[in-house]
Amino acid sequence: MPVKHIAILREGEGDEEKLKLVETVKLPPWDQNARLTVVGRPQVRAEGVEKVTGRAQYAYDMRLPGQLYAAALRSPHPHARIRRIDTSVAEQVDGVHAVLSSANAPAITWYEEECGLFAKTVRFVGDEVAVVAAESEEIAQDALRLIEVDYEPLPFVLDLDAALQPGAPTLHGDSNRKEEPKVYERGDIDQGFGAAEAIIDRVYTTQTQVHNSLEPHGCTALWQGDQVTIWESTQGIFEVREQVAAKLGLPEHHVRVIKEHMGGGFGSKQVAWKQTVIACLLSKMSGRPVQFMLDREGENLAAGSRGKTWQHLRLGAKRDGTLTALAVDIRIANGAYSVGGEGANVSGMYQRLYRCPNVRTEQVAVYLNTGPSVAFRAPGHVEAAFALEAAMDELARALQIDPIELRLRNYTETDQKKENKPYSSPVALRTAYAKVTDAFGWQTYQRPAPNGTKRRGIGFAAHEWGGGGNPPAYAWVKINGDGTADVITGAQDIGTGSRTGLLMVAAEELGLPVDAVTVHLGDTAVGPYAPTSAGSATQVTVGPAVRAAAADAKRQLLEAAAKLLEEDDPTHLHIRDGVISVNGNGTGTVTVKEVAGRLSPHMILGHGLRGANPKDVSIRTFGAQCVEVEVDTATGEITVLRVAASHDCGRIINPTLVESQIIGGVTQGIGFALTEERFVDEASGIVLNANLEEYKVPTVADIPTITHAPVDLPDVAANPTGAKGIGEPPIIPTAPAIASAIFDATGVRLYHTPFSRRALLDALTGATATNAKPATPSAA
Amino acid sequence: MPVKHIAILREGEGDEEKLKLVETVKLPPWDQNARLTVVGRPQVRAEGVEKVTGRAQYAYDMRLPGQLYAAALRSPHPHARIRRIDTSVAEQVDGVHAVLSSANAPAITWYEEECGLFAKTVRFVGDEVAVVAAESEEIAQDALRLIEVDYEPLPFVLDLDAALQPGAPTLHGDSNRKEEPKVYERGDIDQGFGAAEAIIDRVYTTQTQVHNSLEPHGCTALWQGDQVTIWESTQGIFEVREQVAAKLGLPEHHVRVIKEHMGGGFGSKQVAWKQTVIACLLSKMSGRPVQFMLDREGENLAAGSRGKTWQHLRLGAKRDGTLTALAVDIRIANGAYSVGGEGANVSGMYQRLYRCPNVRTEQVAVYLNTGPSVAFRAPGHVEAAFALEAAMDELARALQIDPIELRLRNYTETDQKKENKPYSSPVALRTAYAKVTDAFGWQTYQRPAPNGTKRRGIGFAAHEWGGGGNPPAYAWVKINGDGTADVITGAQDIGTGSRTGLLMVAAEELGLPVDAVTVHLGDTAVGPYAPTSAGSATQVTVGPAVRAAAADAKRQLLEAAAKLLEEDDPTHLHIRDGVISVNGNGTGTVTVKEVAGRLSPHMILGHGLRGANPKDVSIRTFGAQCVEVEVDTATGEITVLRVAASHDCGRIINPTLVESQIIGGVTQGIGFALTEERFVDEASGIVLNANLEEYKVPTVADIPTITHAPVDLPDVAANPTGAKGIGEPPIIPTAPAIASAIFDATGVRLYHTPFSRRALLDALTGATATNAKPATPSAA
Repeated sequence: MPVKHIAILREGEGDEEKLKLVETVKLPPWDQNARLTVVGRPQVRAEGVEKVTGRAQYAYDMRLPGQLYAAALRSPHPHARIRRIDTSVAEQVDGVHAVLSSANAPAITWYEEECGLFAKTVRFVGDEVAVVAAESEEIAQDALRLIEVDYEPLPFVLDLDAALQPGAPTLHGDSNRKEEPKVYERGDIDQGFGAAEAIIDRVYTTQTQVHNSLEPHGCTALWQGDQVTIWESTQGIFEVREQVAAKLGLPEHHVRVIKEHMGGGFGSKQVAWKQTVIACLLSKMSGRPVQFMLDREGENLAAGSRGKTWQHLRLGAKRDGTLTALAVDIRIANGAYSVGGEGANVSGMYQRLYRCPNVRTEQVAVYLNTGPSVAFRAPGHVEAAFALEAAMDELARALQIDPIELRLRNYTETDQKKENKPYSSPVALRTAYAKVTDAFGWQTYQRPAPNGTKRRGIGFAAHEWGGGGNPPAYAWVKINGDGTADVITGAQDIGTGSRTGLLMVAAEELGLPVDAVTVHLGDTAVGPYAPTSAGSATQVTVGPAVRAAAADAKRQLLEAAAKLLEEDDPTHLHIRDGVISVNGNGTGTVTVKEVAGRLSPHMILGHGLRGANPKDVSIRTFGAQCVEVEVDTATGEITVLRVAASHDCGRIINPTLVESQIIGGVTQGIGFALTEERFVDEASGIVLNANLEEYKVPTVADIPTITHAPVDLPDVAANPTGAKGIGEPPIIPTAPAIASAIFDATGVRLYHTPFSRRALLDALTGATATNAKPATPSAA
Repeated sequence: MPVKHIAILREGEGDEEKLKLVETVKLPPWDQNARLTVVGRPQVRAEGVEKVTGRAQYAYDMRLPGQLYAAALRSPHPHARIRRIDTSVAEQVDGVHAVLSSANAPAITWYEEECGLFAKTVRFVGDEVAVVAAESEEIAQDALRLIEVDYEPLPFVLDLDAALQPGAPTLHGDSNRKEEPKVYERGDIDQGFGAAEAIIDRVYTTQTQVHNSLEPHGCTALWQGDQVTIWESTQGIFEVREQVAAKLGLPEHHVRVIKEHMGGGFGSKQVAWKQTVIACLLSKMSGRPVQFMLDREGENLAAGSRGKTWQHLRLGAKRDGTLTALAVDIRIANGAYSVGGEGANVSGMYQRLYRCPNVRTEQVAVYLNTGPSVAFRAPGHVEAAFALEAAMDELARALQIDPIELRLRNYTETDQKKENKPYSSPVALRTAYAKVTDAFGWQTYQRPAPNGTKRRGIGFAAHEWGGGGNPPAYAWVKINGDGTADVITGAQDIGTGSRTGLLMVAAEELGLPVDAVTVHLGDTAVGPYAPTSAGSATQVTVGPAVRAAAADAKRQLLEAAAKLLEEDDPTHLHIRDGVISVNGNGTGTVTVKEVAGRLSPHMILGHGLRGANPKDVSIRTFGAQCVEVEVDTATGEITVLRVAASHDCGRIINPTLVESQIIGGVTQGIGFALTEERFVDEASGIVLNANLEEYKVPTVADIPTITHAPVDLPDVAANPTGAKGIGEPPIIPTAPAIASAIFDATGVRLYHTPFSRRALLDALTGATATNAKPATPSAA
């Protein structure tokens, strides 16, 4: 029986030197032959009943004795210097306990180096100017109106192009370029285009999309003595702990971050935001717990968004469709500040999705006087997929090749960004193509005849993404005296169902029914480290740690059972549904409950960590979607009739939750394609639709039939559970598939998301002064 | 570097067979040569500021949204059958959400087998008849008055002697003997008395003492779905979890018991009491959180007490003081029900404290129609010490031997109850004799001349006790990214300071300052198992587990540091005050913070368990106290002027907390000796002083100077920290020392606690018809 041990590895040099904890004994992966009884079967969420009965406690639901409620005064100017701020009247309001502004906030750097917690220069409409903590939200709002601010308005810039012009107003330093452009090159791009027999050369733009999590950002903070406890709506409790500790000058063990349930984050809650540190400071000032949840307007203005992009894409191909060159020039709106967390890398998918020897990508982030950008579900890939996949469709049409055939001709089984290292799942994308077209009926599609002004069309798009996860993550398993189990890890379930997915992994490994296991998440004080839930990585990063911990517990359980069953070799035993028996010998059995009871109060504890990824393969995920749309050429109305989606996420741990992610992602993709957009008034910099009435998120009525055609190929090289992430991918290919379907229905291509009725009507009538260049095959 | 491994041992046979987890690698103990920097130094409580500022949250302080408050209707009869109970009017009161009584309670067995949660037969004044949950305590109390109960009074018995008479009313079955008498014999008791040249033959009685923890019993319970969370004032979170789960038919992982801070238990909170299960049921019925804390009257009547005892003791000795025989016949009041937990074993100390070849003890617990008895700080030993040590003093006087010399002549270095196995600390009691008499000035005491009617005297008494602790207990240590540490264990700090003691052990082993460590206790969901805080065992049971976990973390820390310091052998490194250096080589150092930072987000986790006790020694604790009293022979007033105490608790982890326990124990011992007593009206069975006004607990004004003369002999055989328990011992010898001091002052012996003014005046005037037999030396 191997003894678990952890080795410490050294990496890097000098100040960059890092150390890593690495497991020295690896679990055999659950491969195709594994007889699994829990994993792979549909399972409702462990906390489902709590949620649908309204009992589940979110950050908003915290009610502590004496709790105060905070509200923010936000800048009405997109760019202004604060000459004077007077909060003295507001401070005198009955029920107001604390007011923070640039006048009295401690010197804490936030965002760019020159910015404080409350900047003396506001840089977007919605920038925090002051915050009041009062006995009710109403009192706080009343007090805000009594704060006098003398602003000196400054010139501002809202447009990507304008921001890069000489003499444009700048936000930080002397340029709106956030950093040097990021350039990636392989092969010889000129030679590539030289060899091309067809070129697609287009400019695409994507809009500002707001996350609009059901639960806004915010927290309840309680500062007591030299310790602070924060009930936070966050994707990363340990990340928030580290940042808050650093900002407030507290040691990490004096900062406790708790998150029990959460109404989504979509990437916007990966970091500590100002409001968390402000809530802590207000709690310290007032001696009371302070809840500072953003209202819907604050959420819309100041809690991040997917920045708009401008992409100039050129594809070069042979007549047979073989890509010879791919060049893209990308500008990404950064907004007023750099929030941190996972930035939008639009270039990534261009570098990987198709086999192409000559690639050049250039990308620059641009400061604008708008709310800050932050990671949003598959950041960068949504934007890139729209352009790349629309261009591929255009190329297929131009070359008269079936769009799926075109993609197969440019298929790669290796990661071109990593010296052609083989993918751990080289056939996954091909499988997705086959599954999704089969489920959709792509090859046999019969376009119905136009119905009045209504026409139908179909479109296809593919994508790649990460989602393989990474160490470190840790988990502990306790076997209770009655044979039930508690799993403890410092992860969080941001609404995706991670709690249930991890529970299933533990139950599977332990051989227990799912209702015998509870997973405890979301508390930095008592949970071992797990990373931020981002990059579709929670299940695949923490799951293997949970499995390792459960395996460690099982090993001890079987050792104990072996003594009771008088079997010399515990490895001859196995557990199924709580019953331990000797392999192929039904005579001797003992239940986990009985073994645990015999041990009690001695408690079996399992400890596990997430092992390293293999170095010889590249772990990525892939997928494809087909859509059918109906376009009304009279009104411009676009109706998505159905979507079929096939996504590689390795082994499917819980089909119910995977389907839930696919439905959610496609829905958000439809919103991105058709209706979601932040409108900013050019004259004033004011967001015109900072609410859920005028910012159009798809509703239940807008969602078509979404069919999931599972790929379900366990990626045994990726990690011992064989699973990969599925949180982000389903949003990626929806918009380009819709764009191609619109073309298929109408013969009109749309190069700018969202595809509004206005835009479609203009395109149909030729009114658009399009910047799109011709798509006919031509000699380069 | 040895790898930690856990072996599973098998013990017992058949259905009695138990399994144990045992560590296979033991830590070297901190012996006399250990250079400790944290352990052994005074340290204020980690939660001290929280407590003195009122911020610390006790069970009483829970305030959950929608919380209800429960109150109990209690029987006014000591014994009655409930013919009919009608709660219908109470249920209609505005703000009442749930009522539970025998009319609607589920069939849950409680106490004796025939008793339900609400017995149809009440058996003491205070027995629960019904409980109301309402929006305020006041509403609940109002509603209670509207419950109609038709009682059929039954004959009752309050007296130990009367209860054992034929024809006495019985509470359960046909006898008030709770079980067969427990008889212990060694040697030949008749031969022993035959060889005696002096005999002391006395009857002693002790009264009912009420624990009167500052915080009463109770909890706040929240039942949601199939899970219940309980914020409980308890000494044993896991014990409560197990019992509540069993009573409610829930799996253990669906019951979460939390205890953050606590205002004492003194043994009365070792088990789940009715009110906890009732609160859970009321929460389930009402769909609301329910707080059910006992009021002071309920606490006094129904939450346990030290049962009164009757002890007939005979000591036989040679003229030189050598004991030849010891026989004792003991009756212990059990009250109306058997609560469980650690029962009072009065016999124990008789069997061990002095070397005596011929010993016979017989003990029987007797049902009475009074509130149930339950363990109370050093249960049994307080009662036994009073009789045995008073008798030893009487023997010393009779034989004209110095009372300490008499004890030294009967000193034993072996455990006579365990085949004379050597004590792990054979010189501890002798050391305590020397230290305490030296600190007190016993040998040089000059009795002042009487001052009017006031006379002074001094007394001495000794004791033995357990307090060595036992496995299992577990702990986890996390090293955070900034080098601070969190310790997690499922223990609880019942007000004794365990949190701080455990923290010091972790800090010592890790080489960190105390303020770099936080200990998380008191949550069954996320903490690994630790036992009930009873038997003075928390520090000594959990401390070694914490040390083992910290050592496991340190091993990894040093492995990582060795890589940074380029030292091949990590065992050459050590940590002091957060700095890691190579032994005897100050050139290369690195801080824990730096190592943790290099590892972050990889996190070092240490896992530890409490090892088994050695089998070749008996681990016990010992101590002695000297007191000086002043007695006013006119008024009977007894004033304790000073107490010196010397107690063996192995290594003193935290002198501040040990002293705190000594002061608390002596104070409670003074209360037991002089003022504390539950008075029950013989005619009605009603407790006359179920409050803190008439039940006289010593106040600050009653506490004399208490001097602690530390023994401080690390018991390296006991466990790797060398510590033993100190919670219970200090209460044990106080009463007999006071009794002997009263005799020393007045020539009058008191055989019955408490020593009231009335009793002393009666004794001084010869009015007491004492049942004490002559103490003069006589041929046997």
